[in-house]
Amino acid sequence: MTNTQSTSFSAGASCGTSQIAGCRFSLHPMDDQFVSLLKGAMEKADTSKIWRSTDDVSTCVRGREIHIFDVVKAMVLHTAKTGAHVALNATFSIGCPGDTEGDAYMAEDDIRLNEPVVKDLSQYVSSQFALYPMGDPDYMKTIMDQVAVAEKHGTLKKGVHYASGLHGDIHDVFATLEEVFANAQQSKSSHIVMTVNMSINSPSHQEDK
Amino acid sequence: MTNTQSTSFSAGASCGTSQIAGCRFSLHPMDDQFVSLLKGAMEKADTSKIWRSTDDVSTCVRGREIHIFDVVKAMVLHTAKTGAHVALNATFSIGCPGDTEGDAYMAEDDIRLNEPVVKDLSQYVSSQFALYPMGDPDYMKTIMDQVAVAEKHGTLKKGVHYASGLHGDIHDVFATLEEVFANAQQSKSSHIVMTVNMSINSPSHQEDK
Ligand SMILES: [Ca+2]
Repeated sequence: MTNTQSTSFSAGASCGTSQIAGCRFSLHPMDDQFVSLLKGAMEKADTSKIWRSTDDVSTCVRGREIHIFDVVKAMVLHTAKTGAHVALNATFSIGCPGDTEGDAYMAEDDIRLNEPVVKDLSQYVSSQFALYPMGDPDYMKTIMDQVAVAEKHGTLKKGVHYASGLHGDIHDVFATLEEVFANAQQSKSSHIVMTVNMSINSPSHQEDK
Repeated sequence: MTNTQSTSFSAGASCGTSQIAGCRFSLHPMDDQFVSLLKGAMEKADTSKIWRSTDDVSTCVRGREIHIFDVVKAMVLHTAKTGAHVALNATFSIGCPGDTEGDAYMAEDDIRLNEPVVKDLSQYVSSQFALYPMGDPDYMKTIMDQVAVAEKHGTLKKGVHYASGLHGDIHDVFATLEEVFANAQQSKSSHIVMTVNMSINSPSHQEDK
């Protein structure tokens, strides 16, 4: 049983020394052609600066934070551009990795490979995010501070139970998520988890745009 | 800005006194007929013992833990029984509620309304779960202990980055999740979050059953 959530966290020797980030996510196109549609869209993203593994439930990408956000946003946008109603479910994580998979990618530079390709594509998204700063009794303050940051971005929609709503153009929403995730790492917690659920091209979005 | 993740957690006066549980979830049928399919399936579940609210991204149910698990499992099963490839994304939470929405449902008894209807439906599911015991520096031990519990249930598939895989019949997997979530509340953390991603009727599941 290598490599579970537990054993990953418990390899404490390397805790806090590696800044490898990761995201476990899945994209769900509500469409009969979901297999070909997903395959086509995900192949359009340049993943050469990140480690990547897909199983029957989700895809995991690991590497530098900047490239994790770059790749996930690109995959979402390429899928959205098929016109299908698509949902993203993602868990971003940074902190105790407990293993070395993907470590080779930590040497990559700061140039986002996908941003030039997707930056001019606009796409309304509605989403909900939650921050989980682990191991810190003051985690509530970290969360409150970052919800305030989202409000400053103009993307905060409203609070809901267990999450905060973010909506707007996908680039603004991802910029908010990326800043919130980076800021939370300045707290006392060395292990930050952020979940994101995003709904795109929903039949119920007409009134919100 | 009432009712965000932050303000919910920060209404500390009531922290730990209420044992209201909740789940924010969405079901994604990868099918052109997702709207009618979801509506039909979700209406089949008896929700009279829980509070419920749906927005453009997800559905939130609140009430006693036992009825939260009963309702979510029933909704997943009714959707799965349409034959569509369906994904569940769910965040279960118990701890500081910070507000009173749904509190009226805390007086309900221990009789599960949906279990008699769904208990004889079998359904293979593959899933990944992660536990987030908040505010506790020893959270890693809580997680490790509960992964061991999943292993005892015979549902543990394998560990992956940021989560643990669970698979098998949906009733065994939900029994594991419910026990793990209950056990984690016996730790030092008073606020337990558990995320679950489940894939059902996937074209890639043939080899795993
Ligand atoms: Ca169809």
